[in-house]
Amino acid sequence: MAKVKKLTSRAENYSEWYNELVKRADLAENSEVRGCMVIKPYGYAIWERMQRILDDMFKETGHVNAYFPLFIPKSFLSKEADHVEGFAKECAVVTHYRLKNDPDGNGVIVDPEAKLEEELIVRPTSETIIWSSYRNWIQSYRDLPILVNQWANVVSWELRTRMFLRTSEFLRQEGHTAHATEQEAIEEAERMLHVYGDFAEQTLAIPVIRGIKTESERFAGAIETYCIEALMQDGKALQAGTSHFLGQNFAKAFDVKFANQDNKEEYVWATSWGVSTRLMGALIMSHSDDQGLVLPPALAPFQVVMIPIARKDEDKAVVYPHIQELAAELKAKGIRVKIDDDETKSPGWKFAEWELKGVPVRIAMGSRDIQAGKVEISRRDTSTKESVDMPDDFSGMISSLLEEIQENIYHKAKTFREEHTVKVDTWEEFNAQLENDLPGFISAHWDGTAETEAKIQEETKATIRCIPVNNALEGGTCVYSGKPSTQRVLFAKAY
Amino acid sequence: MAKVKKLTSRAENYSEWYNELVKRADLAENSEVRGCMVIKPYGYAIWERMQRILDDMFKETGHVNAYFPLFIPKSFLSKEADHVEGFAKECAVVTHYRLKNDPDGNGVIVDPEAKLEEELIVRPTSETIIWSSYRNWIQSYRDLPILVNQWANVVSWELRTRMFLRTSEFLRQEGHTAHATEQEAIEEAERMLHVYGDFAEQTLAIPVIRGIKTESERFAGAIETYCIEALMQDGKALQAGTSHFLGQNFAKAFDVKFANQDNKEEYVWATSWGVSTRLMGALIMSHSDDQGLVLPPALAPFQVVMIPIARKDEDKAVVYPHIQELAAELKAKGIRVKIDDDETKSPGWKFAEWELKGVPVRIAMGSRDIQAGKVEISRRDTSTKESVDMPDDFSGMISSLLEEIQENIYHKAKTFREEHTVKVDTWEEFNAQLENDLPGFISAHWDGTAETEAKIQEETKATIRCIPVNNALEGGTCVYSGKPSTQRVLFAKAY
Repeated sequence: MAKVKKLTSRAENYSEWYNELVKRADLAENSEVRGCMVIKPYGYAIWERMQRILDDMFKETGHVNAYFPLFIPKSFLSKEADHVEGFAKECAVVTHYRLKNDPDGNGVIVDPEAKLEEELIVRPTSETIIWSSYRNWIQSYRDLPILVNQWANVVSWELRTRMFLRTSEFLRQEGHTAHATEQEAIEEAERMLHVYGDFAEQTLAIPVIRGIKTESERFAGAIETYCIEALMQDGKALQAGTSHFLGQNFAKAFDVKFANQDNKEEYVWATSWGVSTRLMGALIMSHSDDQGLVLPPALAPFQVVMIPIARKDEDKAVVYPHIQELAAELKAKGIRVKIDDDETKSPGWKFAEWELKGVPVRIAMGSRDIQAGKVEISRRDTSTKESVDMPDDFSGMISSLLEEIQENIYHKAKTFREEHTVKVDTWEEFNAQLENDLPGFISAHWDGTAETEAKIQEETKATIRCIPVNNALEGGTCVYSGKPSTQRVLFAKAY
Repeated sequence: MAKVKKLTSRAENYSEWYNELVKRADLAENSEVRGCMVIKPYGYAIWERMQRILDDMFKETGHVNAYFPLFIPKSFLSKEADHVEGFAKECAVVTHYRLKNDPDGNGVIVDPEAKLEEELIVRPTSETIIWSSYRNWIQSYRDLPILVNQWANVVSWELRTRMFLRTSEFLRQEGHTAHATEQEAIEEAERMLHVYGDFAEQTLAIPVIRGIKTESERFAGAIETYCIEALMQDGKALQAGTSHFLGQNFAKAFDVKFANQDNKEEYVWATSWGVSTRLMGALIMSHSDDQGLVLPPALAPFQVVMIPIARKDEDKAVVYPHIQELAAELKAKGIRVKIDDDETKSPGWKFAEWELKGVPVRIAMGSRDIQAGKVEISRRDTSTKESVDMPDDFSGMISSLLEEIQENIYHKAKTFREEHTVKVDTWEEFNAQLENDLPGFISAHWDGTAETEAKIQEETKATIRCIPVNNALEGGTCVYSGKPSTQRVLFAKAY
């Protein structure tokens, strides 16, 4: 039996472990275009599950999908002052619209005569192009609210890239809503924060802190940025989704007004919110182990993989139909099952492969198991294997097991986070905590100024991840400046 | 009651009718980026239905989704000689990767120092970038076949654009498969031709001719291009989908070989196939009338719209719960229902609006209907309205009605096509037919040469749409050159 090469362990080299896992589990690979990844079928199947579940949640909360152009005229970006100031200017710029044959016969060259009058930017985010459309959509309060989402690719040029975590092109959804009142827009931004939080916790089994960003960490153009923050197994935080209350900033920049019920003109209130393929990185780094990916059953493209153990034809004749019957029973219950009957691969190879790919439950079955009325069930989350009596209600048992695994994965991640969240009250403790192998979340007092925040980041690389929603007010003194503080905030080193 | 402005009629100005319909039915609009459209929520909901149904068909035939980069290095395009030769060179070229603040304070400018070493092309189609990846995916026959599809946006710079029919950016799917044998690849290309044909006929209710393209009309780099061709109401043809057998052309260009079962190296065989948001144009122009869009029930985001007729509170108290109950009954049967209870709009306005948006069945209901045990049902396809006794099996009746409408729409389009497909045997007849208001498909003998094909196109603007699959062999003489011919082919003016 061909031995499968082991992954570099997390302890050995966390970053190398991550890169190897992404490649070996067939999630993604680097392409020949610098900074752009190829999302491979198995990785894309996981992303499709995320999309489908999120899309259903968006629709349940009244949203519809639409599609806006990939390109943004350069001048649009500077219409909202904070937006252009704060937004990264690393982006893909389209300057020409035609190639021509190289007169020297070396393939194609850019036709210098086909220069655009105004350069187009490949969207890094779509607030500007969308609000320039909303101007035509909105006249009266009757046209509001607009609750639109878009699934799209966006580009933000990155020099140092890591698959899923930071790539020049990535896939995302971006919600862009328009409202008649400030209150309604704030409620929308908060609603979506909780949609993201619920999705992370219930589907991805990733516990998250729901909070608001400090002014320095806000989205460029936002009045308030809400976020969900997760803790990875290396003790670094990862921002997994954001929801912005944009006030009237984009409405003013693009002159989007509506006649209210008293027929008075007002600027429209806005939100935007998004998650991206970065969630794949969060997923991998929250649960996976040295054997590979660990997928929560609610998300897994295949929840159960069934592997027949049968070489001889007479065994196959018994095992294959039996497995097909069991698979049909599971499918009837809505369980996503894969039968791996590829005869060019050995059972041992398959075990390692599906372990690497994180399938929650593996079932191996040979003719002896069938004769003995047994079934061998392996759990990916605990790496345990058990041969049990075949129950009367097979699909019921698997169903309960999947729920148990989902809970266990979430619980494990939550315990990890709790064990790696510490309150510190002095600058020495703060620094000592950051020196740890797993620094985690640090709950500390902060004087509320951007200066202190910047200095802490400069000296330690830790940033304020968020001020948790419903944060307890508690008098104290800033861990850095010693000035008075009214509440603790969460610091961490972050992705 | 506010009168709703009528559409320009098809007879008056077909092209204007199309543009107005697209806008007024809230399907799409032009954006401020030249040649790029905004797909509005209602239009996108229809596209999402197409996506979902096609995606299921692709998965049923063994395909999986993946995602490849938006950008293609310029040099890739010239690796396959026919591909670069035949492919339109109008494309978006990225030359820079950074903006910077204008030192004169006028927004942002392109940073001249951030010039790419090699320009990147926004994908017009993805054969090259995908085959450059497949090189790493394929070593042995065990890695084959690869049956991958991608849903993506693509860009092909267009000077004259029409929403859905020809836009610089459009949405599409592109399948790219890799096979060990020529036979298997041909079978795949043919399989997808029929998937497209079945989808067009069964879901979109558009009858299509399945055929192959002549050499001049083949996709750049293909050995054989299969297509589905539909006839629009103005007598012009529209190519609604293509499937290409690519031979080993891309495998050779990107050096993709595999070890066969005898451990001998061979080049891999390829197909690619795609449909796009152009299908939206085909849909609109196949069925719609002077009142607006007509949607086949199998596709419609809302199959039934229910409109309460109740102004007084006492009427509402009777009508609203009754309508909700009926809607719940329909939903339980899987019927997509919308209750339009917007009180800022009159029933008359709603009737016109949902007619414009093509909802197959409209149900209006007031308290008098309820007391009399009646229900008013309007069919969009026939523009008929009937007040009928409320049946015991309401959802059963609506279900049958939806099926009947689906069939009727298909039948109507098919009859139209049959009435506008003519056999001609002389050049005079050929020209006379093209002078008609509705030229339609012309079945005529052709001598099989590219020269004749080009001359016919030059003189008449008609092109050979396809050679139908299973075409009857029939001796004759070319309608243009008088040379011998073995079969008739289908000519038309086309979109």
